[in-house]
Amino acid sequence: MRVMGIDPGLATTGYGIVETKSARRETSFKLIEGGVITTPPDQPLPERLKTIYDEVRGLVSSFRPKELAVEELYFARNAKTAISVAQARGVVLLAAAGLPVVSYTPLEVKLQLTGFGRATKQQIQGMVARLLGLREPPKPDDAADALAIALCHLLREGSLDRKA
Amino acid sequence: MRVMGIDPGLATTGYGIVETKSARRETSFKLIEGGVITTPPDQPLPERLKTIYDEVRGLVSSFRPKELAVEELYFARNAKTAISVAQARGVVLLAAAGLPVVSYTPLEVKLQLTGFGRATKQQIQGMVARLLGLREPPKPDDAADALAIALCHLLREGSLDRKA
Repeated sequence: MRVMGIDPGLATTGYGIVETKSARRETSFKLIEGGVITTPPDQPLPERLKTIYDEVRGLVSSFRPKELAVEELYFARNAKTAISVAQARGVVLLAAAGLPVVSYTPLEVKLQLTGFGRATKQQIQGMVARLLGLREPPKPDDAADALAIALCHLLREGSLDRKA
Repeated sequence: MRVMGIDPGLATTGYGIVETKSARRETSFKLIEGGVITTPPDQPLPERLKTIYDEVRGLVSSFRPKELAVEELYFARNAKTAISVAQARGVVLLAAAGLPVVSYTPLEVKLQLTGFGRATKQQIQGMVARLLGLREPPKPDDAADALAIALCHLLREGSLDRKA
């Protein structure tokens, strides 16, 4: 099972593609690709959205993930940031149209990866590195966040499988 | 000059295309098309966004507006609504990529159309009807709102021309 995680943002959208293989009582996670899509702030908004759309389309067609996991939006912080993130998230979802999409809140990601809702960014990144067998957390942070979302989805799916 | 106004929303996106002809000391406005794009709430979000995207692309290629005027987002109201509107707005901007885009707040629309920042919806709709030479305001409301945004843009452009 191959999943793409996306942490959407107008200036920086993180992505991470992870593959899992499940045998009886065993699951392995493999890092396929991780990185960020960046758009320059001096570009008109439609062009920045088009860059995100084109890049996500490219990732979907190159890596053929079976499902998409995206960070859920919430509005604790700055409303202006929230609008630009939501606009970026809209084009990400559009670019992945046809794939099943599941959203996770930051809290769910923390709980799935560490069992601890107040986990720090460092703890999450440490788990991403450990699950993927990396010496260090992937860089930049937005790529690590996207991989965390992909792993969250695979871990939750795995637990559902076991329950079934 | 032909402008498309868009009032974005996930369930209902209003659109309106207006053409203006300016001669010396005279401007005429002509309604080309107005309507709404609706998406059913039981559809997955990516499909709803794809419908909006495809329809806006279709309008752009059928009617060839020269510019796009879109309602600016603000966050006085419900945060959940705001997210879904912003996601829809993102795909609208993407669909119109290549066209110059200008955003207007509801306040700017009111001021341009009536000169009065506290104008009611009825007053705005009445002005839309008068400017376009219609007996009644266009229906549904979201189409009228989109036409108001297009007219706001044309009125502002006109005043800039006169200043220049």
